[in-house]
Amino acid sequence: MSEQENNASKAEVEQLTEKVEEVILDAEGKPLSKKALKKLEKEREKEQKKQERLAREAAERAAREANEVDYAVDNYGVAKLNMSQQKSSTKWTEVKDLGESLVGQTVHIQARLHTSRAVGAKMCFLVLRESTSTAQAVVSVDKDSISKQMVKFIASLPSESIVSIVATVTKPAEPIKSCTVGDAELQISKLFVTSEVKTMLPFSLEDASRSEADVEKDPSLNRVNLDTRLNNRVIDLRTTTNNAIFKIQAAVSQLFREFLEKQSFTEIHTPKIIGTASEGGSNVFKVTYFKQDAFLAQSPQLYKQACIAADFGRVYEIAPVFRAEDSNTHRHLTEYIGLDLECAFREHYHEVMYMIGDMFVYIFKNLEERWAHELEIVRKQYPSEKIKFDEKPLRLEYKDAVALLRKAGEEIGDFDDFSTPQEKLLGRLVKQEYDTDFYMLDKFPLAVRPFYTMPDPENPQYSNSYDFFLRGEEIMSGAQRVHDADFLRQRIESFGIDTESLKDYIKAFEYGCPPHAGGGVGLERVVMFYLGVGNIRRTSLFPRDPKRLEP
Amino acid sequence: MSEQENNASKAEVEQLTEKVEEVILDAEGKPLSKKALKKLEKEREKEQKKQERLAREAAERAAREANEVDYAVDNYGVAKLNMSQQKSSTKWTEVKDLGESLVGQTVHIQARLHTSRAVGAKMCFLVLRESTSTAQAVVSVDKDSISKQMVKFIASLPSESIVSIVATVTKPAEPIKSCTVGDAELQISKLFVTSEVKTMLPFSLEDASRSEADVEKDPSLNRVNLDTRLNNRVIDLRTTTNNAIFKIQAAVSQLFREFLEKQSFTEIHTPKIIGTASEGGSNVFKVTYFKQDAFLAQSPQLYKQACIAADFGRVYEIAPVFRAEDSNTHRHLTEYIGLDLECAFREHYHEVMYMIGDMFVYIFKNLEERWAHELEIVRKQYPSEKIKFDEKPLRLEYKDAVALLRKAGEEIGDFDDFSTPQEKLLGRLVKQEYDTDFYMLDKFPLAVRPFYTMPDPENPQYSNSYDFFLRGEEIMSGAQRVHDADFLRQRIESFGIDTESLKDYIKAFEYGCPPHAGGGVGLERVVMFYLGVGNIRRTSLFPRDPKRLEP
Repeated sequence: MSEQENNASKAEVEQLTEKVEEVILDAEGKPLSKKALKKLEKEREKEQKKQERLAREAAERAAREANEVDYAVDNYGVAKLNMSQQKSSTKWTEVKDLGESLVGQTVHIQARLHTSRAVGAKMCFLVLRESTSTAQAVVSVDKDSISKQMVKFIASLPSESIVSIVATVTKPAEPIKSCTVGDAELQISKLFVTSEVKTMLPFSLEDASRSEADVEKDPSLNRVNLDTRLNNRVIDLRTTTNNAIFKIQAAVSQLFREFLEKQSFTEIHTPKIIGTASEGGSNVFKVTYFKQDAFLAQSPQLYKQACIAADFGRVYEIAPVFRAEDSNTHRHLTEYIGLDLECAFREHYHEVMYMIGDMFVYIFKNLEERWAHELEIVRKQYPSEKIKFDEKPLRLEYKDAVALLRKAGEEIGDFDDFSTPQEKLLGRLVKQEYDTDFYMLDKFPLAVRPFYTMPDPENPQYSNSYDFFLRGEEIMSGAQRVHDADFLRQRIESFGIDTESLKDYIKAFEYGCPPHAGGGVGLERVVMFYLGVGNIRRTSLFPRDPKRLEP
Repeated sequence: MSEQENNASKAEVEQLTEKVEEVILDAEGKPLSKKALKKLEKEREKEQKKQERLAREAAERAAREANEVDYAVDNYGVAKLNMSQQKSSTKWTEVKDLGESLVGQTVHIQARLHTSRAVGAKMCFLVLRESTSTAQAVVSVDKDSISKQMVKFIASLPSESIVSIVATVTKPAEPIKSCTVGDAELQISKLFVTSEVKTMLPFSLEDASRSEADVEKDPSLNRVNLDTRLNNRVIDLRTTTNNAIFKIQAAVSQLFREFLEKQSFTEIHTPKIIGTASEGGSNVFKVTYFKQDAFLAQSPQLYKQACIAADFGRVYEIAPVFRAEDSNTHRHLTEYIGLDLECAFREHYHEVMYMIGDMFVYIFKNLEERWAHELEIVRKQYPSEKIKFDEKPLRLEYKDAVALLRKAGEEIGDFDDFSTPQEKLLGRLVKQEYDTDFYMLDKFPLAVRPFYTMPDPENPQYSNSYDFFLRGEEIMSGAQRVHDADFLRQRIESFGIDTESLKDYIKAFEYGCPPHAGGGVGLERVVMFYLGVGNIRRTSLFPRDPKRLEP
């Protein structure tokens, strides 16, 4: 950045804007109406006059108050709009990389002004924030390069402005507990505003970053409720907590892939617009596809199996899935990210089930090791304990779970599906008995699973299917699939589904298909239960539910 | 697999099937109508009788022809439907891992029967196929364990059956040129059919695997046209070529991620169902969203920029994008996979543009090194040369490209958009002049780019935007974006777009946003141009175009 060329010349911007408009009208060949042009012009003039007035007033005020020459004019101000005017060889430092090892060095940093606090007229403390990291900075008047005007300018900047600074790294007298960088402080020598905040924030980042416990302790503090957050999601996402949550979300996908790629899985991309509402037909969104109707895929189930029939062997997909369910709960979204996998096996579906178990263990272990910084940040706002799990995850059979529930006083039939409260109770019982937050439940009743589930060979009231549970809630559902076309047709008919609507699916198996099993994980659910943040909307960037389509 | 328990007992299967049906009816509580039940029952009986007759006939024929005791009955046959009846400690070998180092060893393999060729009544050669690998196997009569009946059974199996074999690895007299495994051959001692082919294949895998040149040389060979392939995509995808194409597709995403993750990018998932038809509003698919209308996202553009405004710094997304364009060309799909990235920068958008250039170089180099086997397979059917590129990719400005085209006789205005033929011509001219298949074209005319493109600061008829070209076709489009809310509003208005429809988007920048640039790649296009396969439908698993919604 050129520090000589800041304090954007209004005339320059105006000239440029005019040139731009001319070009567009010429090039598009369809100029705006004279009326529209005039209106535009007027609005622009108005805005420009306002800007000029504000700048003039600010300058006058500064001069009046200072009543002296500002020897620091070249060291601060609002930078010109960055249109990539120039390149320099400046080395930029990230806030997260600050630390004792840089003491004595001059650094260039671009970051958010998180908060500022003036101490008299000569000094101001700032907290700078970049993603999940914060650091303290100080600017104080000296007689050569930092004027009172400069300190005043900096102290009056609104929070969330983006600033570019030049500073010297010093070692603080005591570790700075309020920042993630505790062992370094910045002595600012130059500061320019890269991007201004132009309207009042809907809530402060400090308020948005408090834990529920803190708010409950001190009723004078503002609680930012979930709807306000989601309506202003771009601001809400800026908290270090939210930046960390979405780094952890990305980490879960990354670890899912890392594990599966080591196991020779191939990533696939299956279509989301489908011609027939498969898998039963309810809960699908309808799409107008040119002159016909189409639907949004509820899962990649049929297509990932088709890839097995096409000899892909082991496949996975990370993609949105769409559910037109009118469920307004803490754990339902109408659009979420499915982590799906499907795997041919040689002998027994347990080859696949145990591999999925190992995969989760890999994810959990690596999260705690490689994303410790992010986990620590999230746990400050949403306290949760590390999950407990065994290196070889616990496997229970459905009938054992029924027995556990009955022992605890629940009334439940041998082949009944569990209710959500029963699942949670089961989680607690398993934790008491086996000291684990993570386990696999195998051999579900056939009647509660989809038509493509392979029955158990010993007792066909059960099936070769499994769910995985984390903190008492289901995070993955899977099974061995029926890979024989004739048997599949029978199973589909027994569900009362028209085999015609699934003809492409069935056809895939008529040309031979290896035995296979797989499963699907809801990414937002895994992150939600792992972090214990209580609502799935907190782990979706821009959540969609029956009542929310925006932002 | 238990080799004692094969030759599926029909009675067992029947019994099992009946049990299954009973259970489902009971458990669901809504039994089928008597009529439907009867119909079902009849069909099942019919099918069963047919199966029994076929089995009896086969057995009788075998006995008649052999007129002797079959001493190999335990060594071949159709295996029982795999319902995970049992586990063994068998170690299974993959076809790709066969080779000279295994000579003398006994291996267990599950693979497709690609082709078979009987030599008299006592010997049969097979080619086994697994994903992108093939190997030769032999079975020949001996007096202890392999009977004439067994050889006959194997020789009569239809291609594409899935078989499980036990075999000894031997060294062939000469390298086997027709298989990918050239230095090992399998002497079969046991063979069971894991999955049968139940209907006639629509085309043979051999026909589907031929190069255009081979078909042209010999008019007696069948050409399998693209529509036939796509109508029977599961079979078509089985060719080693297609298996390899989709491994390369997966590799491109993997390398995209590898590079970006090293550069501290975070993966994001933005919503595909959106409330307003942003970015102009044409070419969007409409979705019925409960009681309101919604739309499918044409790109993650606005949301990935929102993530930059939310301090994510560097983000990428791999996700479907939807375009309701009625274009029926070799390079348009209505649903494709976008590899998108967006990156905050400090000074100049070239920081991002050159990084994207380096990313492509990383992808191309690693493809050739790490996916050499797959590339070789694809190039057998679709011959193409390795692409040429510089370690530091060539950058040309738009005006230089215009000059090159004019020198070659094209009539083109300074600020005209290139036509597709002009792009291709340009590709040839650049290749002649600079000996590269890959280059970056920078500084496009502002008028041909979207509203969010940052104008060039020197000459606002140009812009800070770029396209990347591979073999003369565009594979990535990107730019510095307008990150100032007021300026963005002006730009949107100058396009005649209602700012109200983009209010959430504009709002994101009112709270301050760093300068940023990014771009989007079409995954299928990159793979198509890189491999030179001529039609984008060949690089999409289950392609969607205005006329194709199935399979």
